[in-house]
Amino acid sequence: MIEQNLLPFEFSIFESKSYRETSLAIRTMIVRGAGAIGAAAGYAMAQACLEAPAGNKESYLSHARREIESARPTARNLFYAVERVFAAAKVSAERAMAEAQAIADEDAAASQKIGEFGNELIRDGYGIATHCNAGWLAFVDYGTALSPIYISHQEGKKIFVYVDETRPRGQGARLTAWELHNAGIPHAIIPDNATAWNMSQRKIDIMIVGADRIAANGDTANKIGTLEKAIAAKYYHIPFYVAAPTSTFDLNCPDGSKIVIEERSQDEVLYQDGLTQEGKIKKILVCSPGSAAMNPAFDVTPGELITGFITEKGILGLNNLLMVIG
Amino acid sequence: MIEQNLLPFEFSIFESKSYRETSLAIRTMIVRGAGAIGAAAGYAMAQACLEAPAGNKESYLSHARREIESARPTARNLFYAVERVFAAAKVSAERAMAEAQAIADEDAAASQKIGEFGNELIRDGYGIATHCNAGWLAFVDYGTALSPIYISHQEGKKIFVYVDETRPRGQGARLTAWELHNAGIPHAIIPDNATAWNMSQRKIDIMIVGADRIAANGDTANKIGTLEKAIAAKYYHIPFYVAAPTSTFDLNCPDGSKIVIEERSQDEVLYQDGLTQEGKIKKILVCSPGSAAMNPAFDVTPGELITGFITEKGILGLNNLLMVIG
Repeated sequence: MIEQNLLPFEFSIFESKSYRETSLAIRTMIVRGAGAIGAAAGYAMAQACLEAPAGNKESYLSHARREIESARPTARNLFYAVERVFAAAKVSAERAMAEAQAIADEDAAASQKIGEFGNELIRDGYGIATHCNAGWLAFVDYGTALSPIYISHQEGKKIFVYVDETRPRGQGARLTAWELHNAGIPHAIIPDNATAWNMSQRKIDIMIVGADRIAANGDTANKIGTLEKAIAAKYYHIPFYVAAPTSTFDLNCPDGSKIVIEERSQDEVLYQDGLTQEGKIKKILVCSPGSAAMNPAFDVTPGELITGFITEKGILGLNNLLMVIG
Repeated sequence: MIEQNLLPFEFSIFESKSYRETSLAIRTMIVRGAGAIGAAAGYAMAQACLEAPAGNKESYLSHARREIESARPTARNLFYAVERVFAAAKVSAERAMAEAQAIADEDAAASQKIGEFGNELIRDGYGIATHCNAGWLAFVDYGTALSPIYISHQEGKKIFVYVDETRPRGQGARLTAWELHNAGIPHAIIPDNATAWNMSQRKIDIMIVGADRIAANGDTANKIGTLEKAIAAKYYHIPFYVAAPTSTFDLNCPDGSKIVIEERSQDEVLYQDGLTQEGKIKKILVCSPGSAAMNPAFDVTPGELITGFITEKGILGLNNLLMVIG
């Protein structure tokens, strides 16, 4: 997998040799993004199956499952993948591996379909806002929120993408911008604070974001800040779409209040790493010394603020969500 | 004046010997914050008066006035101060200096009154959100948005302040946090993206921000991101107050669409400075190389989103604004 903590300054491949290493890669965000976490978690579960001692297979697998699940507690795709591969692992290691591979393949196919459906929402000349990174780095291929943008661009539509910086980890400024730059798609990085202002100036025609977990009532957990953008979009009557494969829906979760929100280290807010003039990656303190910080990694956007869900089964609304997926 | 670009990592005093130096200090944000800009601009105009050659006084002053006004085009207090001192300068340099001093004294007195009026809005146990820095660093003394917080704390109310980081320049994380830490007021720095989430979790009982210019209809220009927070506060029915002296009101400006929004260098978004482990201030690239950034320094919050204005003349609403100030 790509070492995403080093992007966009270094491109390096991280090879994980055990389920423990893969778990740690998820926890430390070497691999990140809903679909990519799901695929990695599936493979981690399969790795655990390969590693399990013959006499103690069941308890080894159960322990591994809990360890993998605790790596990123908000990510629905992680639980989804682990559950499927765990069931297959009871049969054989080969079945577990095949299941993990199937999950990754399904993710890529879903991303492609999401791109096609989402593309229909984008008109020539559109300004498009996005938050965090839900591009091919976050998935096995194409991505979710960025997939319609890639297809629109390939079709020759003139679009401009407003990339939310996405503090504290800067996935927009670092990963989405890197993806769009490499794809030659016109874009600008904007401070997270500027989204509502750009909306008020009629620069943004549609906003598309990804999702980490979607409850049965449409409440959506996604990167911190998504909620604030969705509220602003509602205020300015700008369509706000969530792009996600149906595997991100958690129909056992009735609403957003039941979603566990991961609180990450305050150091992600207090310190920032980046490239020095000498070309070295350096971490610096960017806040006043002596002050503490809060760092909730996700927030929950109420379903009522979401115009629709772009899935591999089509564009769904709160009215037909359960009918199509349930 | 305090070199605010070096805070919170270094404390150093910048001495300005000419109106040109003072203008540049305003432009480069050595001095920043509505009231402090106003006071500095008044002194700059008085400096120009002292420097003006006897034979060419009028055109020298007019030129200086334009130069000072262009330093921060959104700041109402700058224009207000320059206008008053410019008028006094026509009489004598002594009158110009006295007028500049009067503006600074009035700013300090207004801050104190704002604190007293605002204090009445804060109850024991309140969570208070603020954006950017409208503390004593931003004014001659006390500040505006932070002034009620200081008084509440002195009175022994148990409060907790949620300090918006305020990207791109981090005035919350660096200046407000520094002020609150030194005053011993409980607080945490939060990513700008987390404000709406904290509101949804009922952590925030009131939000108080400053202002750079307020139009006759209550539309308020303030640090970029203020608009987004005001929309979120409205959505969650959380009182949202603007604290500002009446000198910040621009009754000649009918509404926010007429306010010029300063666009600053994209480098403020792309690069970030901070303290290395070795204790040196270093600037690093925090975005993907090759991508451009947008950097509007302010936004305009519609008056309808503002619960009230905390001024030195009391707490005003849209209904009595013009009656009290006009």
